[in-house]
Amino acid sequence: MNRNDVTEKIIATKVSQGLTWEGVAKKVGQSKEWTTALCLGQMTATSEQAKVLGEVFGLTEDEQKWLKVVPYKGSLPTSVPTDPLIYRWYEIVNVYGTTIKELIHEEFGDGIMSAIDFSMDITREPDPKGDRVSVVLSGKFLPYKTY
Amino acid sequence: MNRNDVTEKIIATKVSQGLTWEGVAKKVGQSKEWTTALCLGQMTATSEQAKVLGEVFGLTEDEQKWLKVVPYKGSLPTSVPTDPLIYRWYEIVNVYGTTIKELIHEEFGDGIMSAIDFSMDITREPDPKGDRVSVVLSGKFLPYKTY
Amino acid sequence: MNRNDVTEKIIATKVSQGLTWEGVAKKVGQSKEWTTALCLGQMTATSEQAKVLGEVFGLTEDEQKWLKVVPYKGSLPTSVPTDPLIYRWYEIVNVYGTTIKELIHEEFGDGIMSAIDFSMDITREPDPKGDRVSVVLSGKFLPYKTY
Amino acid sequence: MNRNDVTEKIIATKVSQGLTWEGVAKKVGQSKEWTTALCLGQMTATSEQAKVLGEVFGLTEDEQKWLKVVPYKGSLPTSVPTDPLIYRWYEIVNVYGTTIKELIHEEFGDGIMSAIDFSMDITREPDPKGDRVSVVLSGKFLPYKTY
Amino acid sequence: MNRNDVTEKIIATKVSQGLTWEGVAKKVGQSKEWTTALCLGQMTATSEQAKVLGEVFGLTEDEQKWLKVVPYKGSLPTSVPTDPLIYRWYEIVNVYGTTIKELIHEEFGDGIMSAIDFSMDITREPDPKGDRVSVVLSGKFLPYKTY
Amino acid sequence: MNRNDVTEKIIATKVSQGLTWEGVAKKVGQSKEWTTALCLGQMTATSEQAKVLGEVFGLTEDEQKWLKVVPYKGSLPTSVPTDPLIYRWYEIVNVYGTTIKELIHEEFGDGIMSAIDFSMDITREPDPKGDRVSVVLSGKFLPYKTY
Amino acid sequence: MNRNDVTEKIIATKVSQGLTWEGVAKKVGQSKEWTTALCLGQMTATSEQAKVLGEVFGLTEDEQKWLKVVPYKGSLPTSVPTDPLIYRWYEIVNVYGTTIKELIHEEFGDGIMSAIDFSMDITREPDPKGDRVSVVLSGKFLPYKTY
Amino acid sequence: MNRNDVTEKIIATKVSQGLTWEGVAKKVGQSKEWTTALCLGQMTATSEQAKVLGEVFGLTEDEQKWLKVVPYKGSLPTSVPTDPLIYRWYEIVNVYGTTIKELIHEEFGDGIMSAIDFSMDITREPDPKGDRVSVVLSGKFLPYKTY
Amino acid sequence: MNRNDVTEKIIATKVSQGLTWEGVAKKVGQSKEWTTALCLGQMTATSEQAKVLGEVFGLTEDEQKWLKVVPYKGSLPTSVPTDPLIYRWYEIVNVYGTTIKELIHEEFGDGIMSAIDFSMDITREPDPKGDRVSVVLSGKFLPYKTY
Amino acid sequence: MNRNDVTEKIIATKVSQGLTWEGVAKKVGQSKEWTTALCLGQMTATSEQAKVLGEVFGLTEDEQKWLKVVPYKGSLPTSVPTDPLIYRWYEIVNVYGTTIKELIHEEFGDGIMSAIDFSMDITREPDPKGDRVSVVLSGKFLPYKTY
Repeated sequence: MNRNDVTEKIIATKVSQGLTWEGVAKKVGQSKEWTTALCLGQMTATSEQAKVLGEVFGLTEDEQKWLKVVPYKGSLPTSVPTDPLIYRWYEIVNVYGTTIKELIHEEFGDGIMSAIDFSMDITREPDPKGDRVSVVLSGKFLPYKTY
Repeated sequence: MNRNDVTEKIIATKVSQGLTWEGVAKKVGQSKEWTTALCLGQMTATSEQAKVLGEVFGLTEDEQKWLKVVPYKGSLPTSVPTDPLIYRWYEIVNVYGTTIKELIHEEFGDGIMSAIDFSMDITREPDPKGDRVSVVLSGKFLPYKTY
Repeated sequence: MNRNDVTEKIIATKVSQGLTWEGVAKKVGQSKEWTTALCLGQMTATSEQAKVLGEVFGLTEDEQKWLKVVPYKGSLPTSVPTDPLIYRWYEIVNVYGTTIKELIHEEFGDGIMSAIDFSMDITREPDPKGDRVSVVLSGKFLPYKTY
Repeated sequence: MNRNDVTEKIIATKVSQGLTWEGVAKKVGQSKEWTTALCLGQMTATSEQAKVLGEVFGLTEDEQKWLKVVPYKGSLPTSVPTDPLIYRWYEIVNVYGTTIKELIHEEFGDGIMSAIDFSMDITREPDPKGDRVSVVLSGKFLPYKTY
Repeated sequence: MNRNDVTEKIIATKVSQGLTWEGVAKKVGQSKEWTTALCLGQMTATSEQAKVLGEVFGLTEDEQKWLKVVPYKGSLPTSVPTDPLIYRWYEIVNVYGTTIKELIHEEFGDGIMSAIDFSMDITREPDPKGDRVSVVLSGKFLPYKTY
Repeated sequence: MNRNDVTEKIIATKVSQGLTWEGVAKKVGQSKEWTTALCLGQMTATSEQAKVLGEVFGLTEDEQKWLKVVPYKGSLPTSVPTDPLIYRWYEIVNVYGTTIKELIHEEFGDGIMSAIDFSMDITREPDPKGDRVSVVLSGKFLPYKTY
Repeated sequence: MNRNDVTEKIIATKVSQGLTWEGVAKKVGQSKEWTTALCLGQMTATSEQAKVLGEVFGLTEDEQKWLKVVPYKGSLPTSVPTDPLIYRWYEIVNVYGTTIKELIHEEFGDGIMSAIDFSMDITREPDPKGDRVSVVLSGKFLPYKTY
Repeated sequence: MNRNDVTEKIIATKVSQGLTWEGVAKKVGQSKEWTTALCLGQMTATSEQAKVLGEVFGLTEDEQKWLKVVPYKGSLPTSVPTDPLIYRWYEIVNVYGTTIKELIHEEFGDGIMSAIDFSMDITREPDPKGDRVSVVLSGKFLPYKTY
Repeated sequence: MNRNDVTEKIIATKVSQGLTWEGVAKKVGQSKEWTTALCLGQMTATSEQAKVLGEVFGLTEDEQKWLKVVPYKGSLPTSVPTDPLIYRWYEIVNVYGTTIKELIHEEFGDGIMSAIDFSMDITREPDPKGDRVSVVLSGKFLPYKTY
Repeated sequence: MNRNDVTEKIIATKVSQGLTWEGVAKKVGQSKEWTTALCLGQMTATSEQAKVLGEVFGLTEDEQKWLKVVPYKGSLPTSVPTDPLIYRWYEIVNVYGTTIKELIHEEFGDGIMSAIDFSMDITREPDPKGDRVSVVLSGKFLPYKTY
């Protein structure tokens, strides 16, 4: 057994029982973004979170233990994603990557926007010309250290 | 001469004269995000925008014309970016890609978040534990058509 | 169980029972192009469509549920396809890609032809020198947004 | 000097003089699709066509000769295109590739749709919900030979 | 079950029973080159051919049906083959590729040698300095269409 | 200066003066296949051959010397060729590679068909249904040594 | 002019004048590790540091300005390095990567060792069996945020 | 059975029983770094070490024998690691690789830092601004031999 | 069943019974280098050799037959090997490849050193400064044919 | 100027003046293998060696200094070499790689054959059936350290 087996069981159970990530997240007590990432094998659960997920998805003790092990992260099968929705995000990095770099450096100097001390919020933005997906990314700025 | 030559001239002039993208954007009359992408060879200028940039960066008539030609987009030298700041964005796509996909589909159904009818806003978010980079992405949801 | 298992079962059943995609499409009530893409794991079914396919291919309740889950799209095993028929399409993109780009931009300006608000129609075009495959692609033009 | 130098000169001249591919095609006497592919270094000109292009773009005798040499074809810098417009075509091949294969085989049996005995027609399709790009591809079906 | 399962069964049976491809081809009534390609999952059988192979290799009805389905072609596990015999062919394409291109164009003009309307004949050429492998490839020339 | 510079000069001169490879080969006194490969930077000339080519293409003494240096072989810019004519050869290796391997081993046992002690002959094969390209490849069989 | 040009000039001057990185670092007033990374185009200089380097390497005003621009980082030409010294580091990541991951997580929980708030110290460790290279890496631990 | 099966059993047992690498290492009598690498399939055990691990993880005789076989090393699934913690190490090699090379050569001359006669020590470095990961790498310097 | 299954069985049996390749080679009556390559699925056995290996490793009749089938060669999982011992050989090819090429051509002219009519001998070379691995490679020189 | 420029000048001078590597090596006073690798940009010269090469190839003072700088090693343009002579060496690594690994480990235990404390000797081995290339590789065995 490994973390991937647990992820697959979670996904299969979700499809079979018609659960929603938002509903699961409420039970876990965290945002839907972080909770989904946890269930998809990218984050690490506390004992309480593992227990909650164990009840929601019918996981054994050992399966719950795997949720508490830090996983080997990376959720995509290829370095350039083939799925159109995910590819659009890759396209944004590809087309706007140097723009993002220039503007963060112009504002903050040399350093990065953290992907660890980081949060994400995905919401629907109603729009008469067609609703929009609004995503807010917030990451701590980490300046390069000199020494 | 090609668009790349114009981009390189713009960047070299910016460094040499100490301009800021925000300042350039104000003269162009668009957001700093879109304007920077334009200057870095990813967007297409109108005649007026090209003229403004021509004055700011000392571009010839032909160089201004190239700004009005739709460019071959893609601003990164490798499919997996090596620059740490840009890589963090790629990492977000890699780690959170399936999460983003799940949540957008849960809210909207099958389709994508447009990277064309799209805007981006990068700002500093003051924080006592260290300022944060806040990025708002807004893209129209496009549902898959059945036929 | 996952979507791929359902796709493989559909294909195996089709071979075993000698069904045609056109026949399946008629029962589903959509075009043969969209229906085939659905059966091959690229599109998402409504409950009614899933039920029809369930009857046609002898799918269980859970298998039908998987048809209603938005799949991770991408139907090819390698980034450059090895199958000669599919490669010819890749070759068209490779040889004519810049031509297509130039002509769409000449007619419409900067933007893309949507692959989401998109339809395809494949027909036989009788020709005394040898019948031809005629394919009509129709995608909404999406102009780049400035902001 | 090589074909690529001639292509770059043609493109630079087109930008500088504000020509359109459609206008060039009319002088050449072929479709705008084939003519653009020729100018972008993918097709081979006859002596008359080379002469016409020589006049339009101010090419020397040697440059005209290069237009008559069969080029090493392939117009994209990477095997997976980064430009969003061209990528959408690659996405169509990736998502619909197996669908296209199934339907052509269902209608014609084993073989391919030629990318050589092939034509393409790109037009604007007016639509109240937003104009569409309509592309008609026509390729001779070539059945596999048994022996 | 899929075509690959059938191919593996055919190969395993051939090893176990000590059959030769030449012997199989005689029963099928086609050349040993085409028949081997068929058995290795690259070509499509008629009902009669599938029946003959069914008897030779002890295939079930369903396995025979798979032989009649057009396969996803491509018989090598990597884009650059590692097997020395097959690599030598790749090396010929790599070293002589531009030579082949020049000479076919010199004789025929722009176009290709078909790999579909194509046959191959592999024979032993006795030679006192060591026997040689003689391979005759014959492909229809297909000129590029102008339109 | 390096061999590539000499190759480019040879090609440019051939285009400019309208020479044919067959004509060049007659002066060199070798087959058109080998001579073309030599001119394209894949083979090594004797002093006499270099002198002949020097006269045909107007090469300096140093350029002639480069023709006598064994080149770093490999004539294609990518591991999977993009040019349609050369790709068809790669496709033959991809689709028929395992077939070729099986049949040579069936006839000769373990070993390879040499790509060094090798010759190639490309001719036009008249055919009422459209002329064919006929290629004869002849390579010495080299058995694996046991020790 | 770009940052790469400045890097190349710095390296060429260093070779020509026989400077050492340690000597340069003393003038800059930072560690030899950080200073070398700066000179090799990976870090960003302050105005004073740029001025010092300007004197050491004879840089123009514009060249000094480039040292103050945040560079596109990444100092290796291939994703798997070919140079044996650098490869050994890649090998350490490849062989010990999962070990490093396990032990940092065992001590700190889920998170990463920062490569930004990071320092490195390379020294000679005398050893009778052959001197050793001793490298101390120190990076702040950054725990994953939950939200 | 192969080494990979043994590695997976060790990891699963460790999760199930809540062991720590440090605890395992104490029983083995080696450092936690080397012991973890051994358990993750990168190093080779002596008979005594295999026996100890056999007791700790409940391994059969044959499984213990596999621990004594030199493994095919390499612990990562992709050449560029996707896991953020391991990627940071790859990033260090990518950004600082040329710096490391310059400084080792400046101190030692041409040669490498061994990854074989090599040790690693990972510790927590308390720091009021946030604890740090401190890693000491020590590798014998191996000078290139001339001959 | 296929050759790979036989190879895995041979390796597992060797580990379980503590055999040595040298001992196996003596029974087969060939060198340890060739015999090991045979057992690892790279060479082809005669009937007698297959029978001997069948007794040594307890192979069934069918498994013995697979040893007599020419295998698809290539023993490494990635094109750049990750195992440090094997990588060093790849490094030799990478660093010394052009040197080897120059010196063989200087001595022999254009051609190659055969990897088919080839033998290898690996021995221990005692040395007071640490024993050395001595490897003698011997390959027939094959000159390029002109025609 | 960089090392590559010096390498290219050395090669061009060698072709132009008809020198041999063996003759150059005698003047340098090292083996022809090491000397060729030095001239091809893979090794580092002492001051005396640089002076000798300076005279042989007419190098300037600065060019001689570059010979004394440790180069970024790796002499091949692609990770899988296209040149047939060099490819054969890569093929040996690919086909015999696991064999070499098994036999060195059987004789020496876990560790590697050094590619740094390493020498190579290439000679002609006369043989009535065709002369052979004999290559002796000698590398110190380096055992993995435990700690």
